[in-house]
Amino acid sequence: MINSFCLEVRIYYEDTDAGGVVYHASYLKFLERARTEWLRKKGITQSALLKKEQVVFVVNSIYIHYRKPASLDDILKVSCELRNIKNCSLVFRQQVTKKEQLLLSAEVCIACVTSNNFQIKKIPIAIKNHLFYSTPS
Amino acid sequence: MINSFCLEVRIYYEDTDAGGVVYHASYLKFLERARTEWLRKKGITQSALLKKEQVVFVVNSIYIHYRKPASLDDILKVSCELRNIKNCSLVFRQQVTKKEQLLLSAEVCIACVTSNNFQIKKIPIAIKNHLFYSTPS
Amino acid sequence: MINSFCLEVRIYYEDTDAGGVVYHASYLKFLERARTEWLRKKGITQSALLKKEQVVFVVNSIYIHYRKPASLDDILKVSCELRNIKNCSLVFRQQVTKKEQLLLSAEVCIACVTSNNFQIKKIPIAIKNHLFYSTPS
Amino acid sequence: MINSFCLEVRIYYEDTDAGGVVYHASYLKFLERARTEWLRKKGITQSALLKKEQVVFVVNSIYIHYRKPASLDDILKVSCELRNIKNCSLVFRQQVTKKEQLLLSAEVCIACVTSNNFQIKKIPIAIKNHLFYSTPS
Repeated sequence: MINSFCLEVRIYYEDTDAGGVVYHASYLKFLERARTEWLRKKGITQSALLKKEQVVFVVNSIYIHYRKPASLDDILKVSCELRNIKNCSLVFRQQVTKKEQLLLSAEVCIACVTSNNFQIKKIPIAIKNHLFYSTPS
Repeated sequence: MINSFCLEVRIYYEDTDAGGVVYHASYLKFLERARTEWLRKKGITQSALLKKEQVVFVVNSIYIHYRKPASLDDILKVSCELRNIKNCSLVFRQQVTKKEQLLLSAEVCIACVTSNNFQIKKIPIAIKNHLFYSTPS
Repeated sequence: MINSFCLEVRIYYEDTDAGGVVYHASYLKFLERARTEWLRKKGITQSALLKKEQVVFVVNSIYIHYRKPASLDDILKVSCELRNIKNCSLVFRQQVTKKEQLLLSAEVCIACVTSNNFQIKKIPIAIKNHLFYSTPS
Repeated sequence: MINSFCLEVRIYYEDTDAGGVVYHASYLKFLERARTEWLRKKGITQSALLKKEQVVFVVNSIYIHYRKPASLDDILKVSCELRNIKNCSLVFRQQVTKKEQLLLSAEVCIACVTSNNFQIKKIPIAIKNHLFYSTPS
């Protein structure tokens, strides 16, 4: 798959809760880190989008299915696969695995919005072409 | 609705990000605070579940639709309505509003698991009856 | 004391870690919530400072002594006492207690900086007078 | 220096706040990540300490001086240098830099406590020797 990507994440105390496992909201951070690094591989940074294009990619909807817990000191793999590019949004399928075992799967819809008032905006064409054609190394 | 509930949440710097609005993962904390206070109104605390029943209520799946952003110093209302009780799980519908305006809607499936190894377990019958019949003040 | 204040904070899963107690960095959020509510009682909000005065109050230095842990479902009291007002900074002494027992003490130096490039700036005189003379209810 | 170490940290949205820069409490996470990786280089993991020795290394006190802000997409270097080993505690000096520029300096005192009731305990002798003599690669 041209548009897939994988990021390793180490689990620290900050990511866990008193249940002894990774806190459920922490996974949203991991999923975002993977999407951000996927973008960076394509030469696009969130800070440049903000400054140069006055747009922000924001989460419009997210579905997460938690299957197995992770623990302190684990190394997780967080995948990120672009499934669809529309005019104003991107759809990603993402997974978190630990030693080949699936811990979590997610579908995330990202919308392109203006940075000043968060109105839906078309993804800048140069960015869109970039997402289509470039291949992460 | 007998089984609905609403919690006020104040937005601090800790909840925001460099986009100038509330960070998307922060809402999962607000949703959990509301579910926790809904349980507490029924006389059930997460710490007592952990110690006395050796069970934990964990998020099994969550769907969130983000509609409008919130900002520093806002006061949000986070609702929590129990929609379904199954043998091993609870389904909640939740909303976040700001001055009657809907910011976010979510459907959250909570599973009952053993606290030592996170295996699915039936919700203790005393707890289940409590969830059914008691009414939050 | 004219310039002291106390805020109640409830402990949720989000605040804890796999050690079974409140995560050490979470207390910085509680300390900030108390300082923010102390300011609000005086009619000053962080968002108004940002928009109207183009200044931000940022933490310049913090010393924290952790004495005893707190746990899930605890209610903590977070105090906030202004000890010193200088031209460009405020010094607070803060404590976190649980049922009269001291869990943590902190000294926090807050600097006034410009919101666009974070340069040290004099506290606006109207704000400074307000901090001096108004009394939290 | 035998006992110094440096970790690279990338800044994501999760680490920032509405001031547009890294949230002050986020640095405590970075400092802990660096200490954890310093320990790991010496063959010691927090999860093994918890399970095998029934001890936890907790933050006893921390002093942080914030000098300059960091922003989205920055790469920071977080150093960790052991300055003192006592019977029940370790003292670290830590710095966060961005391209040779000092953003933050900290002194952190870590105490060894029992994992069940957080009572001060002597650092296990095998661990102590390890901290003294091993050299991070």
